[in-house]
Amino acid sequence: MSLLENISRNIYPLDKSSMEKAKKRLDRLIKPKGSLGKMEDICMQLAGIYEQKEFDTSKKVIIAFAGDHGVYEEGVAPDPQDITVLQFPNFTKGLCGVGVISKFVGADVVAVDVGINCDKRLEGVLDYKIRKGTSNMAKGPAMSREEAIRSLEIGIEVSEECIKKDYKIIGIGEMGIANTTPSTAIVSVICGCKPEEITGIGAGLKKERLEHKAQVIKRAIELNNPNPTDGIDVLAKVGGFEIGAMAGVILGCSANRIPVVIDGFISYAAALIAYKINPKCKEYMIASHMSAEQGTQKALEILKLSPILNMDMRLGEGSGAALAFNIIEASNYTYKNMATFDEIDMGR
Amino acid sequence: MSLLENISRNIYPLDKSSMEKAKKRLDRLIKPKGSLGKMEDICMQLAGIYEQKEFDTSKKVIIAFAGDHGVYEEGVAPDPQDITVLQFPNFTKGLCGVGVISKFVGADVVAVDVGINCDKRLEGVLDYKIRKGTSNMAKGPAMSREEAIRSLEIGIEVSEECIKKDYKIIGIGEMGIANTTPSTAIVSVICGCKPEEITGIGAGLKKERLEHKAQVIKRAIELNNPNPTDGIDVLAKVGGFEIGAMAGVILGCSANRIPVVIDGFISYAAALIAYKINPKCKEYMIASHMSAEQGTQKALEILKLSPILNMDMRLGEGSGAALAFNIIEASNYTYKNMATFDEIDMGR
Repeated sequence: MSLLENISRNIYPLDKSSMEKAKKRLDRLIKPKGSLGKMEDICMQLAGIYEQKEFDTSKKVIIAFAGDHGVYEEGVAPDPQDITVLQFPNFTKGLCGVGVISKFVGADVVAVDVGINCDKRLEGVLDYKIRKGTSNMAKGPAMSREEAIRSLEIGIEVSEECIKKDYKIIGIGEMGIANTTPSTAIVSVICGCKPEEITGIGAGLKKERLEHKAQVIKRAIELNNPNPTDGIDVLAKVGGFEIGAMAGVILGCSANRIPVVIDGFISYAAALIAYKINPKCKEYMIASHMSAEQGTQKALEILKLSPILNMDMRLGEGSGAALAFNIIEASNYTYKNMATFDEIDMGR
Repeated sequence: MSLLENISRNIYPLDKSSMEKAKKRLDRLIKPKGSLGKMEDICMQLAGIYEQKEFDTSKKVIIAFAGDHGVYEEGVAPDPQDITVLQFPNFTKGLCGVGVISKFVGADVVAVDVGINCDKRLEGVLDYKIRKGTSNMAKGPAMSREEAIRSLEIGIEVSEECIKKDYKIIGIGEMGIANTTPSTAIVSVICGCKPEEITGIGAGLKKERLEHKAQVIKRAIELNNPNPTDGIDVLAKVGGFEIGAMAGVILGCSANRIPVVIDGFISYAAALIAYKINPKCKEYMIASHMSAEQGTQKALEILKLSPILNMDMRLGEGSGAALAFNIIEASNYTYKNMATFDEIDMGR
């Protein structure tokens, strides 16, 4: 059995008994029942994931993957491709968005090259390069089915390495010039909506180029005809290496009962791929922020995820996931430290 | 000139020059322009408030006011009124929602009695009691115009005391059994919408009592006929002492160029009162979270505020404002510590 099959077969539902115990404690805290909303939902979810009533989420990491995209040559992104070589090493140095926010919240960052269009090894970056970028999906499949599986398995491997190092919660992030294009294609295929409806500006494409970007996505889907019920097929035909690896982290975390914090729009696409491979992984996801990208609502509807932050962010990198770590920890801290009606005479 | 008039005359627009300087720095950070969304908006707003490019928001406080409501006797709330006497002292002890969350984020809590229905002085609570609860607004005005002004001035006084103690950012919170009822009345009057459309369950009213609650609010508005353009009149006729005091904090902060973090639905009502007294105070507000209460959208539309957290919280106390302190500090930390294109060769 392959690593991917093995992992996917080992994803189980959340532990209802621990969730009920957490709910009992939450209902005894000195507040109207349920009034802390998602702070309570998060604690119940974490209890169900960890299979215990009490847990510690302080050791946390963002795993970020970078890859390039053949479809870049269609002119769908505003930035030069070689910016990734310059920027990606900053992820672990606390210099870029995800780096600084991770420092603020006390999270580590692991950066992984799964397909950057360069020959040199980047400082502080793990080398899992599949090849130097996907093929242009507007002219054929982005990658082979084997490469798609490899990208998923890289995500599983790296997540399991982190879990071995005792990280208790993992966020996903990415960098990949043009990667809102494959992400929009994935959302379009899996959610069954037209590319024109959900194509957004990504990192800052000029509005007059939007129609062109949507047409490129439409062409890629028509040409490759991915099977919407087969996550691996969608990933291979219109995906990206970093998207596959992020989906792999989701599956790896789920099989190891570790919560996985979803970042923005590229993350949603990865989450949809993982969901199509095994829908049970959805229970292990925490949605960090509502991306400013156009297709956000469609993607989140299918996943039935409701992000905790509404920041109009569209940076990617894992910046939103890192920011959400703080709220998750605040939720756990509140759950642990708030007084109960048993401890305090509240006349109830 | 009264304290209220004096404060209201001293609210000025944000400093555009500092905002532009902040924007220049934000645009030089190694990210696509504007991609950090509200993290950037917050930093520009803070620069405009403080009139300087760099600022420190680490010394922070939640000011929470408690008062009772005559309209309670109409059966519009699920909890007994005397719960406030038991719960309010927990605010400063780090035991209840706002207490625990404030501890997590490193904020202090100041608790102020402006009208609790009790004779004893509560431990750790400042005594600014106006009287032991408002009158029943379903039978006449909730308070006199003088009392409304007094409640506003208490908020101004307490906020100025905190500002003297060097707090650089202030959040508002409250406790008041039945206070979603006057808050809904305020939103209804100022936003010009029907009570039936925006009446919600508050702290957990049974659904079958909602229609009754809406009718009580409707009756109060019809009977008292508040002038929607006069914030003090609305506050006097269908408001509450703690709501007036929260509005006072907003005005006090604005006149002293200190950002004020708005909590949930009761805060929105207070913000509307302050806004009607002097619309310029809106620029000093940061909306923390999207309350789960029914009338949220209507209130936020008028104020043009878009909260940063979407937690389905409906606890009040200032719990959402405390939680948002974290994101505001993360924004400032990112603004200060992220590398710029000048510092790093990014090929731009």
